[in-house]
Amino acid sequence: MANPSEIEEGLVLAPQFGADGLVTAVVTDAKSGDVLMVAHMNAEAVAKTIATGDAWYFSRSRKKLWKKGESSGHGQRVVELRVDCDQDALWLKVEQEGPGACHTGRRSCFYRAVPLGQSGAVKLELRDADKTFDPGKVYK
Amino acid sequence: MANPSEIEEGLVLAPQFGADGLVTAVVTDAKSGDVLMVAHMNAEAVAKTIATGDAWYFSRSRKKLWKKGESSGHGQRVVELRVDCDQDALWLKVEQEGPGACHTGRRSCFYRAVPLGQSGAVKLELRDADKTFDPGKVYK
Repeated sequence: MANPSEIEEGLVLAPQFGADGLVTAVVTDAKSGDVLMVAHMNAEAVAKTIATGDAWYFSRSRKKLWKKGESSGHGQRVVELRVDCDQDALWLKVEQEGPGACHTGRRSCFYRAVPLGQSGAVKLELRDADKTFDPGKVYK
Repeated sequence: MANPSEIEEGLVLAPQFGADGLVTAVVTDAKSGDVLMVAHMNAEAVAKTIATGDAWYFSRSRKKLWKKGESSGHGQRVVELRVDCDQDALWLKVEQEGPGACHTGRRSCFYRAVPLGQSGAVKLELRDADKTFDPGKVYK
């Protein structure tokens, strides 16, 4: 294995997969800069994303490799892929195809804000929460 | 526990901590939109961040609660906090204090790009990789 210095300062891609075999993938909209979603990748998803420029992930709930858009048609073309210092997270800047990335029907998965300066039970506030598509029609 | 529909469509903050007691925190620069870092939060880090507006995390390597900037002076003021659909990830838009967020001395942890359209061994390319501070002087 690469040592910490090689991982941080080297130019060899050496993803540090966790005990579950996954790294974290942060996906932002290449135009707006908004975070669209957070997903996970196993080694095969990383390799397929690099080889094809399409976003591939690993679904923890379904326990399977998954090409974004394969059921919804809302795929993601990767404009730029970056890796973080300790190589356990990837950042994908993408062109989101179709009306949205979130399975709930929004453009982004982050459609609720947490008000600051509170303690105890926290009531969320909607942000950019209008549905851009009907998930019941898209995910069959 | 909240059911899936309440988690996704409700207005009650109910972070879905993993088996390790953590949720993922994506941190972006409120001005540039760049992803600065990916970190992790336990329940106490979430509560302290909400209460204070300062970014608190949980260090998996040091196994302790950690206020960003407590040793470096490079803290993060949270401008907006959002939660994702299944409430296992948070997005912090922050004002980064000091010259950078990364312990290697860069503004962002994502200072290397992964070229696309390749297979096999992948050589990274530096991006925005100039050091903005000397980590040896900042982290003692």
